[in-house]
Amino acid sequence: MTEHAKIRQFVETNGRRFVETLKEACSFPSISAEGLGLEQMSDWLEDRFKGMGATVSRLEVAGAPPALLGEFRGTASGSGSSSGSGSNAGRTLMIYDHYDVQPVDPIDLWHSPPFEPAERDGRIYARGVSDNKGDLVARLCALETYQEVFGELPFNVKFFVEGEEETGSLHFEQICRAHADRLQADHCVWEGWRIDHEGRPELVYGCKGLLYVELRCRMLTYDQHSSNACYIPSAAWHLLRAVASIRGADGKVAIPGFYDEALGPEPADAPLIERLPFDEASELKRLGITSFADGLTGMDLRKALIYNPTANIAGFVTGYTVPGAAKTVLPAEALAKVDFRLVPNQDAGDIARKLRRHLDDNGFGDVELETIGEENPSRSPTDSVLGRAIESEAASWWSLEPAVWPLMPATGPMFPVARLLGIPICSPPGVTRPDSAIHAPNEQIRVDDFYDVIGYTAAYLSAYGQL
Amino acid sequence: MTEHAKIRQFVETNGRRFVETLKEACSFPSISAEGLGLEQMSDWLEDRFKGMGATVSRLEVAGAPPALLGEFRGTASGSGSSSGSGSNAGRTLMIYDHYDVQPVDPIDLWHSPPFEPAERDGRIYARGVSDNKGDLVARLCALETYQEVFGELPFNVKFFVEGEEETGSLHFEQICRAHADRLQADHCVWEGWRIDHEGRPELVYGCKGLLYVELRCRMLTYDQHSSNACYIPSAAWHLLRAVASIRGADGKVAIPGFYDEALGPEPADAPLIERLPFDEASELKRLGITSFADGLTGMDLRKALIYNPTANIAGFVTGYTVPGAAKTVLPAEALAKVDFRLVPNQDAGDIARKLRRHLDDNGFGDVELETIGEENPSRSPTDSVLGRAIESEAASWWSLEPAVWPLMPATGPMFPVARLLGIPICSPPGVTRPDSAIHAPNEQIRVDDFYDVIGYTAAYLSAYGQL
Repeated sequence: MTEHAKIRQFVETNGRRFVETLKEACSFPSISAEGLGLEQMSDWLEDRFKGMGATVSRLEVAGAPPALLGEFRGTASGSGSSSGSGSNAGRTLMIYDHYDVQPVDPIDLWHSPPFEPAERDGRIYARGVSDNKGDLVARLCALETYQEVFGELPFNVKFFVEGEEETGSLHFEQICRAHADRLQADHCVWEGWRIDHEGRPELVYGCKGLLYVELRCRMLTYDQHSSNACYIPSAAWHLLRAVASIRGADGKVAIPGFYDEALGPEPADAPLIERLPFDEASELKRLGITSFADGLTGMDLRKALIYNPTANIAGFVTGYTVPGAAKTVLPAEALAKVDFRLVPNQDAGDIARKLRRHLDDNGFGDVELETIGEENPSRSPTDSVLGRAIESEAASWWSLEPAVWPLMPATGPMFPVARLLGIPICSPPGVTRPDSAIHAPNEQIRVDDFYDVIGYTAAYLSAYGQL
Repeated sequence: MTEHAKIRQFVETNGRRFVETLKEACSFPSISAEGLGLEQMSDWLEDRFKGMGATVSRLEVAGAPPALLGEFRGTASGSGSSSGSGSNAGRTLMIYDHYDVQPVDPIDLWHSPPFEPAERDGRIYARGVSDNKGDLVARLCALETYQEVFGELPFNVKFFVEGEEETGSLHFEQICRAHADRLQADHCVWEGWRIDHEGRPELVYGCKGLLYVELRCRMLTYDQHSSNACYIPSAAWHLLRAVASIRGADGKVAIPGFYDEALGPEPADAPLIERLPFDEASELKRLGITSFADGLTGMDLRKALIYNPTANIAGFVTGYTVPGAAKTVLPAEALAKVDFRLVPNQDAGDIARKLRRHLDDNGFGDVELETIGEENPSRSPTDSVLGRAIESEAASWWSLEPAVWPLMPATGPMFPVARLLGIPICSPPGVTRPDSAIHAPNEQIRVDDFYDVIGYTAAYLSAYGQL
């Protein structure tokens, strides 16, 4: 009987119990945006860790819900981290997840109450079941599975579970800095990535960063009649021109120095990118367009997804905005919301300073700039011991060849772990699929995917212990 | 006893009765935007005309409230219009007003019900009392005053009173075309202009035109996550760039041919413009700024007010517009509302076509353009017989020298009368002051201004009959 077969058998036998554990986890309304249920959820999680033999610490900083550190000592462990010796003796694996969830609005669209997990048609519906309690519980179940099938772990495991990922992990970097000594590890398994709509496992080694700014221009004490536009300065025109100056007609960001620190592909990336699935025809259809921005297609499109930083207008509002009515107003103020996706090694703070200088140098010194969100990009090596375990097991666990993203187009709080703590990250396939409705009503996962992720996780833990 | 003294005496004696007539007129909720009370108001007005001896016609076109034509035959009248013979024999004077008013929202801010006219502190409060029932009733009272003081009019008077000025006079041109034969006249007294905050009478000979367009860009079936901004086209960026292309950094409109038909000053304008009062310091203070657009000041500022056409962003909206929240969305659509103030002889339709061509020629052929409001500019000669009567009487009726605007910066439906019917227009000082709160809660006029406008109107009717 192969390792996989042994694992599958155990998961099959214990699956219903695992599902019940997941449903229990999803019954806590741990909505960080509303400060709800975080205490109950973290208490529950602490009890689970302790019940499985872990030492649990609450990593606290002022103003943040506690992050939980659940430490499982392995058989070969000595002092903790092996500092990347290449041997698994005393090696420590960090597993990052979060116990908070998104708000439930619009509540009317839910077919069953978001915190009363319901099973229908082979799926489990609940807020957080996909993002990210499904992965968190699957990993706890995988640890149990490993222990029951293979015995004690040959390496240490540190579950590091924060409670404000859904509100932007505002204190996560601070927690990592304040508790850096407790957070040493050799590798980090990140919050699960996904299974695509065809059932292909996907994994990532990094993420883009984000700089989210608000630009404001207020010129007048109150709105004026537009017949005086010949002599009254317009906040609308001024801010529109300021925003327009950020990006050239070629789609490139026009802030001087914006691309200076942006790294291109690494040599090992090329074959990964060539294998990335991207169904252009169905994506065009989904979007309702006939071509992508800047005529992108093929490998150029895939490369843009990974290596191109962007400047996006997330919102712009000024004046009177009701369609169809001819209200002639000269607006006193205007607001723009612009988000920049950053790639390694761009730095959000540095880009904000360059944007400020760009505005100042182009006659927009009076435009207010406020940073309201920032996360730095980071990518980890694609040839780490952890990555090899995750990739090889994914290739044999699922029937479709895994897709490997050197960097995902979206943003997550990887930077403090990967760069500040210096721990190589890999995010393996998780329970989420494109139709899982994360952040939306009727969030759900497939029960079979939950079982797969439990078993697959036990499999790569085993592989990691043997590499 | 001078003419003015006789007039003042009559108005003083009959003033309370005149005020009661105005309050009666203001008790009708003739809100054209809501299709309310127009029938009752026009019936009341028809009765007033008939009671004063006029022949009344209802000028109708499909879809519009009727315009009333109240014709008073003068003693020297023959066949109607004298076709500008220079003699007052048979001359016809048109008086334009409107019987509709603006909506009353926000109703909570009114200190007394908008259609229950109230007197407080020497003022009358009611919706429409300033714009423009105060002028309309003052003119009816002035006609009575003239008749009682001087006897029969030596010229014909045609009151031409429309019922949808407050909704943009959408059918006014059509009414003028359909009833052109009934609407012949030698001169036209327009809806009253104003008395400034110092008590100075102001009058105008023309108005700017307006082209109000909506520009729309819809690129995607629905909003997308901004992490895909690297390959998904953005309606926000596209429309922002399209709007930015309309105006140069120098503040000039960048649509090719935009200025081709724009006329500059006429020789007779210079002395009028030099005498226009414009308190720059208090205007800067009111607006909360330290300098005007493009550094305008002095005569350049006054000239800009009169001769500069403009492009104004009245509104722009796309994406997520709530301040402070970092929602990362790539908007599927964007909407801009742009109004152009036009000067003679620019044509709203021509400018709309030039804008369309400009967008097409600059890669914005996919931006939808819809005209939602248009009125052509027009100006009448500043040396007409009517103008001379109005100016000279204003100069002697009030203590401050009148300000004469060859063209006002705002827009009104003068074009069909001035250009289609070919009738020279002058808009004399009316009951409105800068603090009259037209279109706003607690619209009001001073009772003394109402008396002044009655008397002054009788005075220029007399002067017009003698020129």
